[in-house]
Amino acid sequence: MKNKQWLLAKRPFGEPTSDTWQFAEADVPELKDGELLVKINYVSLDPAMRGWLNDAKSYIEPVQIGAVMRAGTVGKVVASKNEKFAEGDYVCGHQGVQEYAVSDGKMLHKVDPKLAPLSYYLGVLGMPGMTGYFGLLKTGEPKAGETVVVSGAAGAVGGLVGQIARIKGCRVVGIAGGAEKCQFLIDELGFDAAIDYKSQNVKKALKEACPKGVDVFFDNVGGDILDDVLTQINMKARIVICGAISQYNNTTPVKGPSNYLSLLVNRAKMEGIVVFDNIAEYPTAMKDIAGWIHSGEMKVKDHVVEGIETFPDTLMMLFKGENFGKLVLKVGDE
Amino acid sequence: MKNKQWLLAKRPFGEPTSDTWQFAEADVPELKDGELLVKINYVSLDPAMRGWLNDAKSYIEPVQIGAVMRAGTVGKVVASKNEKFAEGDYVCGHQGVQEYAVSDGKMLHKVDPKLAPLSYYLGVLGMPGMTGYFGLLKTGEPKAGETVVVSGAAGAVGGLVGQIARIKGCRVVGIAGGAEKCQFLIDELGFDAAIDYKSQNVKKALKEACPKGVDVFFDNVGGDILDDVLTQINMKARIVICGAISQYNNTTPVKGPSNYLSLLVNRAKMEGIVVFDNIAEYPTAMKDIAGWIHSGEMKVKDHVVEGIETFPDTLMMLFKGENFGKLVLKVGDE
Repeated sequence: MKNKQWLLAKRPFGEPTSDTWQFAEADVPELKDGELLVKINYVSLDPAMRGWLNDAKSYIEPVQIGAVMRAGTVGKVVASKNEKFAEGDYVCGHQGVQEYAVSDGKMLHKVDPKLAPLSYYLGVLGMPGMTGYFGLLKTGEPKAGETVVVSGAAGAVGGLVGQIARIKGCRVVGIAGGAEKCQFLIDELGFDAAIDYKSQNVKKALKEACPKGVDVFFDNVGGDILDDVLTQINMKARIVICGAISQYNNTTPVKGPSNYLSLLVNRAKMEGIVVFDNIAEYPTAMKDIAGWIHSGEMKVKDHVVEGIETFPDTLMMLFKGENFGKLVLKVGDE
Repeated sequence: MKNKQWLLAKRPFGEPTSDTWQFAEADVPELKDGELLVKINYVSLDPAMRGWLNDAKSYIEPVQIGAVMRAGTVGKVVASKNEKFAEGDYVCGHQGVQEYAVSDGKMLHKVDPKLAPLSYYLGVLGMPGMTGYFGLLKTGEPKAGETVVVSGAAGAVGGLVGQIARIKGCRVVGIAGGAEKCQFLIDELGFDAAIDYKSQNVKKALKEACPKGVDVFFDNVGGDILDDVLTQINMKARIVICGAISQYNNTTPVKGPSNYLSLLVNRAKMEGIVVFDNIAEYPTAMKDIAGWIHSGEMKVKDHVVEGIETFPDTLMMLFKGENFGKLVLKVGDE
């Protein structure tokens, strides 16, 4: 049996290019005692993956040159010599951009395909969902009646953050690229307003969309958008730094927020989050999110692209703003 | 009786220049019922004054063109038609850069020259003291054994912050300009280490001076120093944004912290403070600080320049890093 894989060939300077990746076909190894074999159905594509390519101290080890690219995955156990997993189980983990993966089971957890579509375990019920849930509620601390702004609002994390803020009784304003995404935020996800950063002056649009100012900003984008929001924050505002997708492929230094002294004027704070800090509380979040989905209060939009061969181009959709909802790569049938 | 005053003539673009100010001599007005006349002894010169010159939304109204320049003051009541103040009382307030000031008494509070030298009421027992005390303790939240770094460490706020951190059992590292100031921080104020940003590579020096990383950074300076410290912060670090003196006279946009994504990696926060939020608790702070001074745990260094005529040049000492300790302008004898 052959396994198709994408390996990291070379660390990118700026945008990942064809040089960054190496496609490989390898034999699927024989299982040893305690191991299991997973046939992967979906590979998660997330902005954070760009950071994992850099050889720099971060919240997680960089991917090593020659290694299979790290990625969240969901798949089916097709063979097992591990007593905790049986053939036919579905499992979630970080098994990388490949069709098959061998594991000792330690970093895998079982998921139930009857409770939710498999891809949801990479999105609303996976890392992006946990990121948005804890980042908004524990660090953003939104109160009913406050105004919450989220950037990258049509992405996996942003769409969830806005909906949770709405459910908690906040006025919700999303920033996204393009009229179609903005319409979707209002019509489908129930945002109160949406700003198209590609066609609107964000600062002016924020003033109109947030007549009472901004209490919580959940930032996935950084750059000029962060600076624009900083001009509109209220006293004691909370800015959650979840990511800065506009800066990840920079070949020049990251653009720091020129307007950060607005934090001083407004006694506001800017705080960074990493999802893994909340592992012990994931079950609570999953229960809440699943409940909102079942009650119809929360909508889910996945953006599925088929074929492991497309990985390098599909990943780039994130940085070009071409994904519409949670981006996943379908690499095998369920 | 003539009153010498400095008025704001023109809002500066970048550094204040001779065009910014107008020297005036005016008659001291007759007192109405309820008013009192103060002969000012010391005028406080603080970096925040630069911000008050800008016609921009901030935590306080800008100084108006043609008005006496706003400044903290301490002086003696020389005439009173206000029953709450008697001739001979000493009072503190924001009476501006002038020799005499008339007041209705509402924004003045009495101080006791027997308890501390008058100038202290503009420094450790005044706005800079309150800023450092509450900014460090309430926002920085230092714990014994942690490493606290402070920029502008030989200034009014920085020197106090470092000493309070030392008293609270922290390792204290100061960043200041020049060997003399750095020696003073260690020899006189009891800092554990000092970094001379003018002659040292701050990032390298921080690595040496903070072998366990930085838990709290109290920033008065901004710019490159903030960026350098961001590379050395620990998990859950607290960055207190008190000021950014390196940026106040910029004619280009403020340099935002390029390394702000270190907040994300380290789940750290950056939070702005304004001293006035703590007015109700000033007495507690003053009691603590006065206690430390009396016990010898805290040293005070004032930098006194004489003569109201020198105001424009003396103010600029702050932005050139020429003050050594709390800068005050002596405008009248006690």
